Amino acid sequence: MQKSRLVNIMPTDHEFMEMALVEARGAALNNEVPIGAVVAFEGRVVGRGRNMVEELNDPTAHAEILALREAAHNLDRWRLTDCTLYVTLEPCAMCLGACYAARIDRLVYGAASPKFGALGSAVELRGTEKLNHRLELRGGVHSEEAAKLLKEFFQEKSQRLGRG
Amino acid sequence: MQKSRLVNIMPTDHEFMEMALVEARGAALNNEVPIGAVVAFEGRVVGRGRNMVEELNDPTAHAEILALREAAHNLDRWRLTDCTLYVTLEPCAMCLGACYAARIDRLVYGAASPKFGALGSAVELRGTEKLNHRLELRGGVHSEEAAKLLKEFFQEKSQRLGRG
Repeated sequence: MQKSRLVNIMPTDHEFMEMALVEARGAALNNEVPIGAVVAFEGRVVGRGRNMVEELNDPTAHAEILALREAAHNLDRWRLTDCTLYVTLEPCAMCLGACYAARIDRLVYGAASPKFGALGSAVELRGTEKLNHRLELRGGVHSEEAAKLLKEFFQEKSQRLGRG
Repeated sequence: MQKSRLVNIMPTDHEFMEMALVEARGAALNNEVPIGAVVAFEGRVVGRGRNMVEELNDPTAHAEILALREAAHNLDRWRLTDCTLYVTLEPCAMCLGACYAARIDRLVYGAASPKFGALGSAVELRGTEKLNHRLELRGGVHSEEAAKLLKEFFQEKSQRLGRG
């Protein structure tokens, strides 16, 4: 019998990012800043997260943190080597630091974050030799869609405030 | 009747750090890297945390993150303005980023962390104008005791591994 060819069909970075965008849209519906993340391991999603700062009243409840925590729980290990984090927006210092803390191998993000991004936009945490960990990076995946969600969210919010 | 003079007796930075050291010792007893933190608001402790990465199997369960989350829960607000975080060790990028995310006003730490510290030891996150938030810093409070706890923990660990 021929070995199934299905085993080789791995989702692409763009497909994983679409799943992160689903999370971001869920955050917007919940009146949270629309940012979403998923953690992938061996072609499967093992953790999902969306921004829940307001709902959980937790300053650390960013999409990435929640996705990393769920992945660690599901894989039953806190060292997430061989995992990739997909997030719709360039991570802040906390979330990029969490990627280092979790030892993930690869980080793929969508839009740049001029105000908080820690990959060069507001802060530069890359290339710190002393961090003792290599992290492969890819930016700009589905960035237009990620940025559009954020723009629409803040436009709607300011319109609501204007009316209020 | 005279107004009680007690209301003016606020614990000092050293006293709050002693409470963080109690947490760090608790972590060591639990076989976790001994780092502890407390969040203070108006002279009271409103959040406590000790490193629980192994116990919770959570890469983000650093002392600071847990203390900030507890403080936000107790104060019923995720913006921890007017709060001070006391932590026995110079925070890593994730935890310093969490201080920014939580909008805390002041960070007091004990020993420097050459491998992971984000206040100049391994990374330099200070003075990033774009981070849009001012954080008052004080280091070196009870640093000898904090460093001693860590040294003893790793010495014991390597001895155990040597015997194993």
